[in-house]
Amino acid sequence: MTNAYHNLCTTFTRLSRFEHLSAIAGWDMQTMMPAKGNVARSEAMAELNVLQHQILTNPQVGEWLQQAESETLNEIEQANLREMRRHYHNAVLLPEALVEAKSLAGARCEHAWRQQRIANDWNGFAENLREVVKLSREEAAIRAQAAGTSRYDALLNLYEPGTNSASLDSIFGDLKQWLPELLQKVTAKQAGEACLVPQGPFDLEKQRQLGLQVMNLLGFDFDGGRVDISVHPFCGGVPQDVRITTRYNEQEFLSALMGIVHETGHARYEQNLPRAWLGQPISHARSTAIHESQSLLFEMQLARSKEFLPLILPLVVEQFGEQPAFEMQNFIALNQRVKTGFIRVDADEVSYPAHVILRYEIEKALINGEIEVDDIPALWNEKMQQYLGLNTEGNYQNGCMQDIHWTDGAFGYFPTYTLGAMYAAQLFHAARSKIPELDRNIANGDLSALFNWLQTTIWQHGSHYSTAELITQATGESLNPRFFRQHLEQRYL
Amino acid sequence: MTNAYHNLCTTFTRLSRFEHLSAIAGWDMQTMMPAKGNVARSEAMAELNVLQHQILTNPQVGEWLQQAESETLNEIEQANLREMRRHYHNAVLLPEALVEAKSLAGARCEHAWRQQRIANDWNGFAENLREVVKLSREEAAIRAQAAGTSRYDALLNLYEPGTNSASLDSIFGDLKQWLPELLQKVTAKQAGEACLVPQGPFDLEKQRQLGLQVMNLLGFDFDGGRVDISVHPFCGGVPQDVRITTRYNEQEFLSALMGIVHETGHARYEQNLPRAWLGQPISHARSTAIHESQSLLFEMQLARSKEFLPLILPLVVEQFGEQPAFEMQNFIALNQRVKTGFIRVDADEVSYPAHVILRYEIEKALINGEIEVDDIPALWNEKMQQYLGLNTEGNYQNGCMQDIHWTDGAFGYFPTYTLGAMYAAQLFHAARSKIPELDRNIANGDLSALFNWLQTTIWQHGSHYSTAELITQATGESLNPRFFRQHLEQRYL
Repeated sequence: MTNAYHNLCTTFTRLSRFEHLSAIAGWDMQTMMPAKGNVARSEAMAELNVLQHQILTNPQVGEWLQQAESETLNEIEQANLREMRRHYHNAVLLPEALVEAKSLAGARCEHAWRQQRIANDWNGFAENLREVVKLSREEAAIRAQAAGTSRYDALLNLYEPGTNSASLDSIFGDLKQWLPELLQKVTAKQAGEACLVPQGPFDLEKQRQLGLQVMNLLGFDFDGGRVDISVHPFCGGVPQDVRITTRYNEQEFLSALMGIVHETGHARYEQNLPRAWLGQPISHARSTAIHESQSLLFEMQLARSKEFLPLILPLVVEQFGEQPAFEMQNFIALNQRVKTGFIRVDADEVSYPAHVILRYEIEKALINGEIEVDDIPALWNEKMQQYLGLNTEGNYQNGCMQDIHWTDGAFGYFPTYTLGAMYAAQLFHAARSKIPELDRNIANGDLSALFNWLQTTIWQHGSHYSTAELITQATGESLNPRFFRQHLEQRYL
Repeated sequence: MTNAYHNLCTTFTRLSRFEHLSAIAGWDMQTMMPAKGNVARSEAMAELNVLQHQILTNPQVGEWLQQAESETLNEIEQANLREMRRHYHNAVLLPEALVEAKSLAGARCEHAWRQQRIANDWNGFAENLREVVKLSREEAAIRAQAAGTSRYDALLNLYEPGTNSASLDSIFGDLKQWLPELLQKVTAKQAGEACLVPQGPFDLEKQRQLGLQVMNLLGFDFDGGRVDISVHPFCGGVPQDVRITTRYNEQEFLSALMGIVHETGHARYEQNLPRAWLGQPISHARSTAIHESQSLLFEMQLARSKEFLPLILPLVVEQFGEQPAFEMQNFIALNQRVKTGFIRVDADEVSYPAHVILRYEIEKALINGEIEVDDIPALWNEKMQQYLGLNTEGNYQNGCMQDIHWTDGAFGYFPTYTLGAMYAAQLFHAARSKIPELDRNIANGDLSALFNWLQTTIWQHGSHYSTAELITQATGESLNPRFFRQHLEQRYL
């Protein structure tokens, strides 16, 4: 190992240790912290963020990055250096004053939004959002100039390096051609099929036990992680100690259970990131969309399939006893029910992309300066009518105020949900073609071949390869949305 | 606010934010973290400790401390400056190499001790302990030279500023005169009294509920703290978010319950430290002994009294139902039972000081170079025979290997347990003389006057005054061990 590169590795190891503390303190904030701890915790975490930013953007790091270019590095080291460069440039571009202003405006907007959403107070929200958008546009302009891209693409690249809106326009344009019709056909078909809803209450401790059993089935390593409760389910912690969360509802247990399956997909990716490289940027999960591809592969491709559902039905009955809704065909129908609605996070996998495309189109126009904050409600209503046949006029809380993402300026994140769904379909299709008898294995409760294949093709590589390289190596081609369409048509028609 | 002092305040606020993260990550490590998280967490916390040490010992801090001497400061600011100076000098004295060597040797010794204690492996333990003692002596020598004290006194002052072994020798010498006889009398008296032991099992969730009820009765603020489970009970977190722990045993619930009372005493001190000064050293709890005085006041003076126990007995019966051991006189006798034994942490308040004096005498001689590690087992046995009539020859695991303190070099800590018991007795005596009808109030379930008095005399002052000033203001005199003797004689004879 040569000198500048070695110094960079030491610096990034140090950064990863502070990131560890940030991840655990952040998890605690969502799961354990009592209300009065909030201010002190926010201040402590902000102090840590400032420190991390200072360490990363130290001019010395920039010098080492330059020197390392001329050092003799093997292929792994070069990939690691590429990721180091990406993190450094993403951080060093922004003036500290803008970072701070964005952070403050985002915190203010998000904090007020919690109440404003309940009160359906668009005007109050819009006032804060205008400031967030203004600062996000400033950030986008700086990043766009450095990258030579459009403003929106510059933000998109923070979450999904290598993607641009030209390709998203094409992918989503295609989706818009066939999805509304598919959705209509599926809902018409399902309207003629009986589907009993399970009758609660469902004891929360029993729901928790059921969740643990399913996590176990899915290979979650309990010596390297845990599951707790939070308002918004997430996967946090660090690869050596992965913390997933869910939320329980006494009247309905499937959302919590499928939430656990979803987060377990994220968790297994984290738990299997390359151990030898931990602490270095090359060890990180590849991207937001690839991360989502793992959670959606677990939830949508695997767990809601007619092969897998019979594995968990006996566990459900063991906890809650028999009832008509737990007849096998009904249980499968329940987990494959398609029903359009206002709320993205409650959407099934067929209508979900419509929610994403709507947001993508609005946020792209917003960041590129083609529309203003005040244009959002009308556009939202127009697109909801067009894509899902729903009217959101005046209904801000279930319309354009339902998500947290824009409140703190996370523009460019939404598209990764649908990219993730597409990668998941493509990966599962490839797994099926590589693993003889995959569906039969699953039906027999043997998931080892699937998990080994994911470990070999995705998990163990961290950020060694670009997203395109990773997917091409795993599936033989780069992103191809036709597998997603094929999956939906096969499952739902 | 003037310049250098202002800069110091900013620096100490920053340090307190990192201390916040350290406290929460440390709490998580003991309560939540799965096994595989251990190495990464230890590394992350060590990195944070190094950072905190660097910030505190930055030469700039030394310069500001000097400049601030000549600035115009009010009395509060001067007290804060005094505490800043103490923290800075305690940290800056030690060469970084010694800090690191001590930390590594301590971690190695403690880690190995966990197994060695179980295996009763004195020789293995002694090998690691010799290194810890060697480094602690180096530390003590450096501190002693700077402070002009004996080596042991220099370490003692880290936990209990203002105390020295001359005064401890006198206090403990007096105790040794009357305690063995008292202990004999009490055990002889209690031998003639029947005392039924409650018959388990005691459901763990019911034990938890009982603990919450008692914490509530004792005024714990659940919006600013929580209670969880750990192997060794402790009080951690930060004043805005206090985390206490206990451990439950299905066969015996009183240890866990009284453990919760004890930690709630610590917690209320933390929850009521001066809000206006949080982040500054003046806001910290005064000392280890004063902290322990609060937990022991709650546990020994208050909760094990014949006035208080009738308040919690109905809660016990509500959770576990009636049984003969829950007859009132028996319940009181149970909670005031004196029984000598090998283990300090299981000791009653009458025999506890013997455990402390023994350790004090050995560690003082060890740090001052009068004995060596190899002399410990024989000395331990000799003193256990003398003070408690128990033989520990060859029984290392229940003798000189039972505590964690020496494994990582916390020499000077043990005496604060008994100082805390003495302060607790003195404070409770003062409260009784200041609050008319205190015992009757307690019996009626009205604890507000007691808590208000503690708030006024102790909690709200943080580190504003020295320990001697604080106690003199609260009780009219500095430490006077006669109140402790009086308490024991009144309760147990």
